Amino acid sequence: MNYKIIFLLLLTTWCRAGAPDRDDGYRLWLKYDLIKDASQRATYARSAQFIALSGNTPVLKTAAEELQAGLQGLLGKAVPIVTSAGNKTGGIILTTRADLPTRNDEGYQITGKQNITVSGRTDAGVLYGAFALLRQLQTGQPISGLSLISNPKIQLRMLNHWDNTDGSIERGYAGSSLWNWYELPERIDPRYRDYARANASIGINGTVVNNVNASSRFLTAEYLEKVAALANVFRPYGIKIYLSVYFPAPKTIGGLKTADPLDPEVNKWWADKATEIYKLIPDFGGFLVKANSEGQPGPQDYNRTHADGANMLAKALAPHKGIVIWRAFVYKADGKADRFKAAYEEFQPLDGQFDKNVIVQVKNGPIDFQPREPFSPIFGVMPKTPLGMEFQLTQEYLGFATHLVYEAPIFKECLDSDTYVTGKNSTVAKVIDGSLHAYPLTAIAGVANTGSDRNWTGHPLAQANWYAFGRLAWDHSLSSEALANEWVKMTLTTEPASVKTITDMLLKSRDIYVNYNTPMGLSRPWTGAHFAPEPWQNRSSRPDWTAIYYHRADSLGLGFDRTAKGSNALAQYRPEVQQQWNNPETCPLPYLLWFHHVPWTKKLSTGRTLWDELCTRFYTGADSVGWLQKQWAQVKKDVNPETFDNVAGRLATQQKEAIWWRDAWVLYLQEFSRQPIPAPFKKPERSLDEVKQLVEIYKMR
Amino acid sequence: MNYKIIFLLLLTTWCRAGAPDRDDGYRLWLKYDLIKDASQRATYARSAQFIALSGNTPVLKTAAEELQAGLQGLLGKAVPIVTSAGNKTGGIILTTRADLPTRNDEGYQITGKQNITVSGRTDAGVLYGAFALLRQLQTGQPISGLSLISNPKIQLRMLNHWDNTDGSIERGYAGSSLWNWYELPERIDPRYRDYARANASIGINGTVVNNVNASSRFLTAEYLEKVAALANVFRPYGIKIYLSVYFPAPKTIGGLKTADPLDPEVNKWWADKATEIYKLIPDFGGFLVKANSEGQPGPQDYNRTHADGANMLAKALAPHKGIVIWRAFVYKADGKADRFKAAYEEFQPLDGQFDKNVIVQVKNGPIDFQPREPFSPIFGVMPKTPLGMEFQLTQEYLGFATHLVYEAPIFKECLDSDTYVTGKNSTVAKVIDGSLHAYPLTAIAGVANTGSDRNWTGHPLAQANWYAFGRLAWDHSLSSEALANEWVKMTLTTEPASVKTITDMLLKSRDIYVNYNTPMGLSRPWTGAHFAPEPWQNRSSRPDWTAIYYHRADSLGLGFDRTAKGSNALAQYRPEVQQQWNNPETCPLPYLLWFHHVPWTKKLSTGRTLWDELCTRFYTGADSVGWLQKQWAQVKKDVNPETFDNVAGRLATQQKEAIWWRDAWVLYLQEFSRQPIPAPFKKPERSLDEVKQLVEIYKMR
Repeated sequence: MNYKIIFLLLLTTWCRAGAPDRDDGYRLWLKYDLIKDASQRATYARSAQFIALSGNTPVLKTAAEELQAGLQGLLGKAVPIVTSAGNKTGGIILTTRADLPTRNDEGYQITGKQNITVSGRTDAGVLYGAFALLRQLQTGQPISGLSLISNPKIQLRMLNHWDNTDGSIERGYAGSSLWNWYELPERIDPRYRDYARANASIGINGTVVNNVNASSRFLTAEYLEKVAALANVFRPYGIKIYLSVYFPAPKTIGGLKTADPLDPEVNKWWADKATEIYKLIPDFGGFLVKANSEGQPGPQDYNRTHADGANMLAKALAPHKGIVIWRAFVYKADGKADRFKAAYEEFQPLDGQFDKNVIVQVKNGPIDFQPREPFSPIFGVMPKTPLGMEFQLTQEYLGFATHLVYEAPIFKECLDSDTYVTGKNSTVAKVIDGSLHAYPLTAIAGVANTGSDRNWTGHPLAQANWYAFGRLAWDHSLSSEALANEWVKMTLTTEPASVKTITDMLLKSRDIYVNYNTPMGLSRPWTGAHFAPEPWQNRSSRPDWTAIYYHRADSLGLGFDRTAKGSNALAQYRPEVQQQWNNPETCPLPYLLWFHHVPWTKKLSTGRTLWDELCTRFYTGADSVGWLQKQWAQVKKDVNPETFDNVAGRLATQQKEAIWWRDAWVLYLQEFSRQPIPAPFKKPERSLDEVKQLVEIYKMR
Repeated sequence: MNYKIIFLLLLTTWCRAGAPDRDDGYRLWLKYDLIKDASQRATYARSAQFIALSGNTPVLKTAAEELQAGLQGLLGKAVPIVTSAGNKTGGIILTTRADLPTRNDEGYQITGKQNITVSGRTDAGVLYGAFALLRQLQTGQPISGLSLISNPKIQLRMLNHWDNTDGSIERGYAGSSLWNWYELPERIDPRYRDYARANASIGINGTVVNNVNASSRFLTAEYLEKVAALANVFRPYGIKIYLSVYFPAPKTIGGLKTADPLDPEVNKWWADKATEIYKLIPDFGGFLVKANSEGQPGPQDYNRTHADGANMLAKALAPHKGIVIWRAFVYKADGKADRFKAAYEEFQPLDGQFDKNVIVQVKNGPIDFQPREPFSPIFGVMPKTPLGMEFQLTQEYLGFATHLVYEAPIFKECLDSDTYVTGKNSTVAKVIDGSLHAYPLTAIAGVANTGSDRNWTGHPLAQANWYAFGRLAWDHSLSSEALANEWVKMTLTTEPASVKTITDMLLKSRDIYVNYNTPMGLSRPWTGAHFAPEPWQNRSSRPDWTAIYYHRADSLGLGFDRTAKGSNALAQYRPEVQQQWNNPETCPLPYLLWFHHVPWTKKLSTGRTLWDELCTRFYTGADSVGWLQKQWAQVKKDVNPETFDNVAGRLATQQKEAIWWRDAWVLYLQEFSRQPIPAPFKKPERSLDEVKQLVEIYKMR
């Protein structure tokens, strides 16, 4: 028993004492409340009489201690950690085995015979197995007689934090940054460890702690010490730390006159910097880079390519086994071009030119984390370049922390999309997990939705997005429903009727949001803070930063023509995809206005005209928030009061704002369509001017 | 028993279950842990067998429920609330009595005979009395046989929150704003109530929830609803809500072409706005205004005076009994003028011109919340205008959240300063509490140090500043030591040796900070974020936003000559004050460089030259942080581990940064003094360039 074990035990005890009467959400899905059913508890207890651990490495110790703390809470009894099971039975053995039949080093095997054996080829595998075993108990599954093997399908499963040096978070809606840079490295906030625990429990093994719009500070000796202190906390949980880097750092902190990636001095500066970093952080993960994107400097400032820039950094990191994650989120300020096509046009020609330790990280869709986007056409067309996936967990375009949007369906929709690049069933998931092109490196990242809010994510149900992302990063074949179900049981309630109700709410939430916000392929009706509806916005410093650039409403119809008659962005997809999306008759309605400028009076497959269909979606979307409220009211008895009130309050705000979105859209579009609002829907009670005035309030300084 | 009582009881239970093993500081000084000494507990319990409350108003109910929850925790037993004591004894009676011999409506009387009677003329008086009674128990004082009367010396005891609409806090170092504007009014964070509880417990009765650099948003109907929702939470705790207003609001949200305070339409707009506000918030407190200050618009934009501006707002609020708090923090961008003199010059001539419901709020010193400033010369010279005090709790110039600075001595130093305006003993406190000039209105404000950090204030010991401010606002005659002692006992430990050690640390902390940061009257060696030492800073958009403007170091000496030979700011003080400060021989060393440009080689009263004295202070100041660390190590056994580690970590950072400050100053000033560092102090190990490089890191974007 060491201090950390005592700490974990106290934490568990402390938490149990308060639950379920007062629960502020801090514990996430690692609640470990006492299992209510005494006979089930006894059954589990018979198989969990001890934990046998022979190793003594930090990650193995974490596995044993987490298991012990979890069992203490769930079973209400102390489970001793012993160094060997000897000939005892009825316990849990944690062990590493080099010859394990897992597919890769982080996989685990759990077998339940006289003892339950959790094994991995590596310490990390054992840690993931320990959390998987706990999950069995938390979700009421049997643990004896188990025989399962699980392997992560993607190697690098990461969070990206867009956190700034001053504690603010770009696009953060759950308080300020988790990282207290002014206190580091001297003070270690206990929360850092709890962050690592939560991530490890869902298989996340890497984190980029600073904003992609990066400050040079992070590469200074002063800040690297702070970063190293965080790395020390994360290491026992199998999590590597990465940094976003500012491309001109050799100038800003290195005193060089250039940051040209082909300049030998610049190369030497980065190589020296890498050596300095690895001296402090031997398992440092690598660099994430946003370059020549939205005003960030980059290699193109020196007439070099993205590959030149990435490879220079890759060479600096290679001796230390570090990697470069280079973002493909680029687009030029060209109002006549189609931003949709930019990443493909800039990156596809570079395929094959990147060093082996470079990953190009691509947002799921071609624009920017819209509520619904088709998959980015770049997936599949760079067989020689590992492409990583970038999803966004923080709800930049999804109603901040007041709208309920369970994101697993967004992730799944993209991952399950068929690119057809090597024939049918060439899904995006197979591109990302490397199986399609035998990528030597695979990666998936979620832009974090965590912050200093006590419950981590602001909206209590947004914890499910963090959870589902991690679990899908491990295994993208899991269903949105299974993950929702699992998360609800671990976090909110195990009462079957309420589990079903909440799971149903989660599963429908994204379509509800899309319906009142951006139905049928509308996108980016925001400006500024990305909060209030502003589809009328027509002026900005860049044409592609207006709203009208995207929806292209006119007296004839609505939507962005990306067929050959328009921007021809569709040509970036394979013929099989084009064939379906090119024709407005076969293009799925959710994507229709992404690719077609459709007449207001055009009859759709639903039997309604475009205008009537749009109105139907805006109105039913807004109404459905009322349905969410009613569903939530039904689970009151099974959810702790603080969480219940918290969600109920946010749903009320969502309801108000959903009507605001509906009114903004229908009143604005009506000026083009000149059509009445179809029965049975009632005309909004306010005028477009009143809606606009309300929007202006949220834009005031 | 209603829901709120259950909530409070659960909260107390929950809290007790975790303490003292895990304490995250959330409970502040309202911990109510079980009193360890069983006999003392039994003694208290004999006098606390019931709570009798006949009234049913919200504030009275709060008093009873807070008392009940506190007793439950401290005594470990449920104390019933009954409607009447009947002929029972051994209980606590809460009652209002119109004829109570208190001096004012918020005072309370506690008498202990067969029952303990807590009475006030108003509900608020009873509430403050209930918290005072709890404080007796928390600090181990007797409660039977009590006979005490306490009255607040100042009417409006307020916090000012410099919180923005986006959740950021100007000069906030404890996370983001407490107010979740995007969730209001639908969701009420339970923390709002805990905020109100904490304030009520120390006598604070007003709060300005938004930044003085105000957004127009707050005066829109949309935001007033949010503000009203907060007001509803604060009301049962006797706390009124106030708003900072943006002076040109009639233009920005009213659609008028001017905000001229003499324009009838502008007057009407404000009057209508006030009516709108009071319809939503009947007990709304009033407006706080920063105008014609640091770029904020104001009446001078229309060639009107501050009085014109304030009176216009006063007339709008007067029918509703609202007040205007008009800030005197003004200074022009004139590098040849002395900013020290600005507030006096602009406001003193306006004395007598303000409406009855206007208070002019003055920062304690003439510049801007420096670690040590002489009192502002405006105190005492506006007998016909109520002057309110503005102190700063958030540590803008006091090392953010990593330096320990107990601020009560700062507050007391100012309040106890003698202005001599009506002869000896005309202290600033007597100006502020109205006793000197019979002000009909009195006010004191603290710029809040609270934020979303779990422990409210970032540095755990900074809670003491919030506490001491509230208690001094109530009674400025209390000593820094008594308040420190009280706070430590309520918050950290009741073990006598540790109470003494921590109290001693608190009391010395401010002088330690001043010694390494700004000794002997140095000021404002910051630029930008007010974090890193930068006494060399000599360029800015305004001359008075450089560091050299303040310290005026040259080859001859150091300091700002404010005698008749210099800026003659001293002339703003009464002759008795001038007499002492005008002469460098009699000017107290802590103020020396505020008023004199002193030769490096000048022998001081300490027997050292200016240079040697400066070095001595920089070095002993930095060394003393080591002393703080040693003291803190001694209390480890009596303080909960989480708080202990938290403070220990921050002290380590403070130690590092104190040496940084020392090195910055001595190496920089040495370039002027050309003197060696006196024995026994050792030359800094780094060069001035190295120090500057480190500073540059903290200035990088």
